[in-house]
Amino acid sequence: MILTVTPNAALDVTYQIDALTPYATHRVGAVAERAGGKGVNVARVLHGLGTPVLATGLAGGPTGQRLRELLIADDVAEAFLPVTGDARRTVVVADRADATGFWEPGPTVTAAEWSGFTAHFAALLAGVKVVVLSGSLPPGVPATAYAELLALAHAAGAATILDADGDPLRQGLRVQPDLVKPNAAELHALTGIRVDGPDAARAAVAALRELGAGDVVASLGGGGLVAVSEQGVWRARLAEPLTGNPTGAGDACVAALARGLLAGQPWPERLRDAVALSAAAVLSPVAGVVDPAVYERLRTEVIVDVC
Amino acid sequence: MILTVTPNAALDVTYQIDALTPYATHRVGAVAERAGGKGVNVARVLHGLGTPVLATGLAGGPTGQRLRELLIADDVAEAFLPVTGDARRTVVVADRADATGFWEPGPTVTAAEWSGFTAHFAALLAGVKVVVLSGSLPPGVPATAYAELLALAHAAGAATILDADGDPLRQGLRVQPDLVKPNAAELHALTGIRVDGPDAARAAVAALRELGAGDVVASLGGGGLVAVSEQGVWRARLAEPLTGNPTGAGDACVAALARGLLAGQPWPERLRDAVALSAAAVLSPVAGVVDPAVYERLRTEVIVDVC
Repeated sequence: MILTVTPNAALDVTYQIDALTPYATHRVGAVAERAGGKGVNVARVLHGLGTPVLATGLAGGPTGQRLRELLIADDVAEAFLPVTGDARRTVVVADRADATGFWEPGPTVTAAEWSGFTAHFAALLAGVKVVVLSGSLPPGVPATAYAELLALAHAAGAATILDADGDPLRQGLRVQPDLVKPNAAELHALTGIRVDGPDAARAAVAALRELGAGDVVASLGGGGLVAVSEQGVWRARLAEPLTGNPTGAGDACVAALARGLLAGQPWPERLRDAVALSAAAVLSPVAGVVDPAVYERLRTEVIVDVC
Repeated sequence: MILTVTPNAALDVTYQIDALTPYATHRVGAVAERAGGKGVNVARVLHGLGTPVLATGLAGGPTGQRLRELLIADDVAEAFLPVTGDARRTVVVADRADATGFWEPGPTVTAAEWSGFTAHFAALLAGVKVVVLSGSLPPGVPATAYAELLALAHAAGAATILDADGDPLRQGLRVQPDLVKPNAAELHALTGIRVDGPDAARAAVAALRELGAGDVVASLGGGGLVAVSEQGVWRARLAEPLTGNPTGAGDACVAALARGLLAGQPWPERLRDAVALSAAAVLSPVAGVVDPAVYERLRTEVIVDVC
């Protein structure tokens, strides 16, 4: 069983409009709602692939209630803890050309609520093999939040994946997550190394491992993935990067890495899956939904090199 | 007592961001919520001026509940009827330069709910002298909605103001509202006359009165107001148009016209108030809030001409 944690889960709202005109007023044609947040997207991809997964995190108020109802309607098992503050919304305005996003900061969580969540999380760990911790923290949750959850997961014998940025990632690294998946911007922020290619990525990853990271999979967008582990260093990519909807591609990548960790899959296969699942997400109009046939086709096109 | 009706009341949500970049993702700094919709704004302005007012309309679901709580917190008397569908949101994205709006269409209202509202409305009419009907209709409410409400109001002896557009306005005109307040775009849509100045406005207003309108106050933005009634024709304006936030200026104008109708104020005074209150709304950062001192100062600067 994989457990995904989304401390700042969101109700993703998409507004369909004809064309975005800055500083005008737009009548929205259609409003679509779905449960969102990075860990929620990971859980949805895993569920779609038939991997047993449970989604948890904080989700309060009527917006949190709605988010949970939508997850249940999608048949994704959830154990979110309700808090007093209303869950945030992420509003995506989609026109015929592209999408523009507005991400609310999230509700303020009290110290007592956070403490309640750590106990809730600990109780969910029985039988969990892999824990995935994803995304931003809502106001009020301490920057040590992921470090606390990682320590609890390791004590329970679970392997851990951390997909975060900034101080929560930095603090989490001290507790040595089994795998982190930074992108180029996160690597630069943490190590000061500007990641403009595979060589710079390897240098930045080495610096990250000094900070405490176990295995590192750096995502370089169209440049693919660079993985560094005790077993070796690999680069995996498609011959030609795809264009499409990058939202959720990182979450699909994490879903593949979580499956690989759960199954003890060899690294080259793990990376093949991760690149193919990310690319299939790029080709999907909706974050967290992947076409299995597209995924299977792309798997055969991934190039994995030993570095 | 003035009764305002907002069939498609909204929760107005303002997102503060640094700068709008089309097709990028923005982290929202602050989220502000208030009760909105044109009739709600009219009620808030009237309440701020000390005029007894009751706000009604349809407002369902958790968003409708929130809207009502915010009105109560603002001390505005409300008698909204809850319906099953969740009330709409209007999202305004404000950056340092200006604001961009996204208006949801509103919930689908059933025939039984609309019928229930007409009974609710009729029961509220006791003691009401002026009824203000404002804004769009949510999906499911018939285009004859304002015509039905106007007939009920007239039967109860109340004077009526209709501030709507499209088919609901056209159908409403057949029941001869005492006052309508179209803007240039609405006049053009209804009469085919392009309103590019006071003369064209007078021609369009004459055509509108053929369709059933009683008195007409046409709002020409910075060009001020043109009023046509049995008592005469006037134009009222500031010497120099103001720049600022036009959202809510039309609603402030309607609030002044409703007060004038309630008090039987002479037309020149009524228009002086309407121009000054609209202009004070333009200078206010928030729709439905007017600084009384600014309003009093601007009243002395309005030019009213007999045409």
